[in-house]
Amino acid sequence: MKRITIYDVAKEADVSLATVSRVINDSNVVREDTRIRVQKAIEKLGYKPNAIAQGLALSKTTTVSIVMGEKMFPYHAKILNGLMDVAKIYNYNIMFHTTSKGISKMQDVIESIIKSRVDGVILFNDNFSEDELEVLNEYQIPMVIVGSKIPKTNIANVGNVYVDFEQMAYDLVNTCFEKGIEDIALVEDKLNLSMMEQLKNGIDKAYEEKGKKFEKYISYDDSYKSSYVFLTEHFKQMKPSQMVITLRDSQAIAVLNASSEAGYKVPDDYELICVLNNKYLNMVRPHISSYNIPEYDMGAVAMRLLTKMLVEDKDKKQPLNKEIEMTYSFLKRSSVK
Amino acid sequence: MKRITIYDVAKEADVSLATVSRVINDSNVVREDTRIRVQKAIEKLGYKPNAIAQGLALSKTTTVSIVMGEKMFPYHAKILNGLMDVAKIYNYNIMFHTTSKGISKMQDVIESIIKSRVDGVILFNDNFSEDELEVLNEYQIPMVIVGSKIPKTNIANVGNVYVDFEQMAYDLVNTCFEKGIEDIALVEDKLNLSMMEQLKNGIDKAYEEKGKKFEKYISYDDSYKSSYVFLTEHFKQMKPSQMVITLRDSQAIAVLNASSEAGYKVPDDYELICVLNNKYLNMVRPHISSYNIPEYDMGAVAMRLLTKMLVEDKDKKQPLNKEIEMTYSFLKRSSVK
Repeated sequence: MKRITIYDVAKEADVSLATVSRVINDSNVVREDTRIRVQKAIEKLGYKPNAIAQGLALSKTTTVSIVMGEKMFPYHAKILNGLMDVAKIYNYNIMFHTTSKGISKMQDVIESIIKSRVDGVILFNDNFSEDELEVLNEYQIPMVIVGSKIPKTNIANVGNVYVDFEQMAYDLVNTCFEKGIEDIALVEDKLNLSMMEQLKNGIDKAYEEKGKKFEKYISYDDSYKSSYVFLTEHFKQMKPSQMVITLRDSQAIAVLNASSEAGYKVPDDYELICVLNNKYLNMVRPHISSYNIPEYDMGAVAMRLLTKMLVEDKDKKQPLNKEIEMTYSFLKRSSVK
Repeated sequence: MKRITIYDVAKEADVSLATVSRVINDSNVVREDTRIRVQKAIEKLGYKPNAIAQGLALSKTTTVSIVMGEKMFPYHAKILNGLMDVAKIYNYNIMFHTTSKGISKMQDVIESIIKSRVDGVILFNDNFSEDELEVLNEYQIPMVIVGSKIPKTNIANVGNVYVDFEQMAYDLVNTCFEKGIEDIALVEDKLNLSMMEQLKNGIDKAYEEKGKKFEKYISYDDSYKSSYVFLTEHFKQMKPSQMVITLRDSQAIAVLNASSEAGYKVPDDYELICVLNNKYLNMVRPHISSYNIPEYDMGAVAMRLLTKMLVEDKDKKQPLNKEIEMTYSFLKRSSVK
């Protein structure tokens, strides 16, 4: 049966929400005939205005903390949508925490999580140390880490919903080798160093198997205001590799602009792939190839996994599968031949 | 005095956080000499491991709800950063709610806010009706609305931190008139209809004062997959107005791409301004002019205002100023002459 809400009462009595609220709270500004109409609607629908207080007394609300790096906020929007939609279905309260270099450090977030006695935690990759995870684990708080694959851990109560970026990079480089492309560059994204490492590991592995060494990891120091400023200098001195790989849109578009201003054309002079997809890759010319990563689904699956972990029966024969790999596909656009 | 944390103890005893945690929780897996070292560190620093439980019993934690439309998520990132940083300073817990067309409706969010007995609410413009605000007001929950200016309301407990987009559009059109530009177009952004209305009102007013009528509000129906698809058709049939104004980056870049493919050049054939600034406006060529809106500050000021409202003394002679207008400035880039 559908739960009756204050909205249903307002509709039935043909009054505003505020009027229903006033009647419930015994406000004396409501006209007598309106008050009677609202009370009739309440009776007819069986609306229980005290359900809120009763609910609080009888049952515990499940609260889940989501911890996110402030800078990655616009990039995790779809994952967050998936998390929030599933949380809504289960009627969870969401406590939101951000970490940033300046004000909000992970250690404060952990203290606040422990203090507020949340039931579970969703973490994004790249935000914490294994040591910090272990503290949460000591307080027996189930955690799900979403984004990339975490290293094998001894911590029991940790789930992981991920895309295997190392495998993705390994496969991409082998595809390049098959096409005769051996000069490949990877541009660093300073916001995602652990994901950069996974990409680099995959590339290294593919090169090593070929008896070669990967040497074009393009990194720049903080003296450059942006990757675009650095790349503008870079392409004055050397031409782009045959294949340039970036993690995020900003670096891909910076490569495109800086190389174009130096006279190089995509895909004739070089090919370009940006790992994380978003709409801006279709807004530049040529459109930049990318990977279709099921971000919304990753969020939804992560929250669903946490739900299962919250009710997990530890003595069950069939333990819960807490490592869930998500599949991706290549989005071929005009930046590759 | 700085509050002593579990991190300080771990550092002092030269052990991991998990070890400190285990000692506190009387786990028997800790070696005796380590246990003694940790306990000495706890005593030396005056760390109170039971502070968490004591805190819960003695004092109430302030909890603030933030309500945000799911689709606007990437665009409100900086406002959210400002909100979160100030919340962190005051040690507030943040409950996060999103609204979306499908699953999470505003009425559910309101019920969840009331149920979880939050102390205050931050709302973004464009998400709610006045009726819904009044319900929150009946429960005496202070609210601050951040983004654009809200209409005058009878609701007492509402603050507003805003940029006056109507005035911005009015001033912009008058500047155009002074330069002899009278053919101005405004491209609709379907995600922000109330902000579109404010921009349109400002433009209407400037035209009316000139004895003219504004007629180039460019809107498209849902049969088009995107503004780019619509605009591609549009610019085949007619040339761009002298000045094209959009609200968000997506529309501005769509105008730029569609018009360019139809053979029009910015700023020679027409000029282009995008109201809401972000980094992508500098990633296209030419760079698109915009407004510098202090988004981080708006978030910080909004949370600060809510803090003041939470402790407001209603009988004070000098009432709290709850309407705070933020200033903006024009960012001239190469899309205007």
